[in-house]
Amino acid sequence: MEYAIGADIGGTKIQVAAVDREGCVICRHLVPTEAHLGPGQVMEKVLTGVELTLSRLPGDAGIAGIGIGSAGQIDFASGTVAFAGDQLPGWTGTSIKSRVEERFGLPAYVDNDVNVVAVAEQLYGAGRGLDSFLCVALGTGIGGAIVEAGRIVRGAQGCAGELGHVSVDFNGPRCDNCGNNGCVELYASGSGIARLGRELIAESAEPPVWRPDSREIAQAWLRGDPQAARVMDVAIRALAAAIAGYIHMCNPQAVIVGGGVSETGPSFLEALDREVRVRTSPSVRSAYRLLPAYVGNDAGVIGAAAQVWLYSDGQ
Amino acid sequence: MEYAIGADIGGTKIQVAAVDREGCVICRHLVPTEAHLGPGQVMEKVLTGVELTLSRLPGDAGIAGIGIGSAGQIDFASGTVAFAGDQLPGWTGTSIKSRVEERFGLPAYVDNDVNVVAVAEQLYGAGRGLDSFLCVALGTGIGGAIVEAGRIVRGAQGCAGELGHVSVDFNGPRCDNCGNNGCVELYASGSGIARLGRELIAESAEPPVWRPDSREIAQAWLRGDPQAARVMDVAIRALAAAIAGYIHMCNPQAVIVGGGVSETGPSFLEALDREVRVRTSPSVRSAYRLLPAYVGNDAGVIGAAAQVWLYSDGQ
Repeated sequence: MEYAIGADIGGTKIQVAAVDREGCVICRHLVPTEAHLGPGQVMEKVLTGVELTLSRLPGDAGIAGIGIGSAGQIDFASGTVAFAGDQLPGWTGTSIKSRVEERFGLPAYVDNDVNVVAVAEQLYGAGRGLDSFLCVALGTGIGGAIVEAGRIVRGAQGCAGELGHVSVDFNGPRCDNCGNNGCVELYASGSGIARLGRELIAESAEPPVWRPDSREIAQAWLRGDPQAARVMDVAIRALAAAIAGYIHMCNPQAVIVGGGVSETGPSFLEALDREVRVRTSPSVRSAYRLLPAYVGNDAGVIGAAAQVWLYSDGQ
Repeated sequence: MEYAIGADIGGTKIQVAAVDREGCVICRHLVPTEAHLGPGQVMEKVLTGVELTLSRLPGDAGIAGIGIGSAGQIDFASGTVAFAGDQLPGWTGTSIKSRVEERFGLPAYVDNDVNVVAVAEQLYGAGRGLDSFLCVALGTGIGGAIVEAGRIVRGAQGCAGELGHVSVDFNGPRCDNCGNNGCVELYASGSGIARLGRELIAESAEPPVWRPDSREIAQAWLRGDPQAARVMDVAIRALAAAIAGYIHMCNPQAVIVGGGVSETGPSFLEALDREVRVRTSPSVRSAYRLLPAYVGNDAGVIGAAAQVWLYSDGQ
């Protein structure tokens, strides 16, 4: 049996696993990132995780390579971190690929965490058989990954896919992260929904039954709470406007949505899909489907590992 | 000497020319489209134009093929019109490629008019040597074309590049063309600037010195007219927000802007560039340059013809 090792490096946890060609995971290894310890310690945790995973595999297992997904902006060609923010302090500049290849003598592939999720969806999930789709990762912020002509779009510096910083109101509040006004992340991410919730609380004579937390607000919305509906209506319309703009720009076959409030149930995706369809021309609307992310919690390690199969096969 | 024939089919005129490998144009032929005569007559004008152009070339000239750019949405693979609006009534469904190949026995390539301009910029203009850029065509509406990894992004149905229908205000006026709210075309196209001009006139105690026409407003803005500046400020901020969103999504090396008010002089592009830079993260901003379209008025036929060199060389 042949395996690829996948490692998913996030701001709070590092997950390492062995994954086979069909995307089945064995030998999971999970540790807290403890990013405050600095990039050297984080790198050591990754290397130790890979070592432990390799040691647990049966003696006759073949290892095709090591794939890594990391938070931040990654230069795929060199496998180094082009930019990482507060989530992973000091991580910018780390040569992940060369460190891993030196230590294990195996080919390594490094991309950002949302791009590897798109790889997982393309090989095993909602993107199977599709040439062009957008992956939307709804979390504290909003991430994105673009597949076009079957390949991840990385852009000039590996920074492509930042759906969160698409403006949906050029007169809207200024985004501290990028300088644009009215970034969709300010309305439809976990922190954006919480922000809208706080605004509603400040304006309301009667305080809502929920705290300004995106999951609480989404749950209240599902129960029919009218104040939560006011917040979620803004979030859904803003996200739909950004997705509709992307559909007009790139005319994809699908938009795959995962993470955060999208996991509260199908109502969210149904409402989002309705709003996207209202906001798109028939010519681009007919090709497009809104799909829930399929691969789930292990998508990070599965996609990280899947890079080995995808790129060592000559793509 | 070897030539490619280029034909540029627009709503008001059809231009045909012979173009050499270096993008030099000879034997221009220009006729009004008279689109109201119907798709059969329009096709006849294209075929006659190609015939006349061929007949004017020296007897020893080689003809490598025929490239066509047409208004509307084009299915590049089949060379048919997927959708054309009021500009070319009845044009939807026309099999341009097969008609041209049957008549002349030469290979033909058909794409939409903005995509072929992007080809011209890529081979001979501002996009030379670049792998990833966005072409913005400011006209009555706003068109776009995306080059990524050196190739035109066409999307699932050949409709990609519709920058005009990127929303910059999800609560803004509804766009009759696509159903989205606050499409950038409603603010920064020729008709959008005229619309903002009419709004200002309706609100102003003192009527402006200009009529609500985008070129008049742009000229007044250049002269320092404060009312024109109010209109142009909105147009430039809206367009910058849409371009900044694209830069975050695709991290391109350049955005190439041509047509309409962008031709009033460098002040417009300088103001646009300043506003785009304010609205983008340092990580994507550093790679990007805003460039004026280079190829100019003949870009349509040059790019149409250039498809022959680009695609017959195996791309």
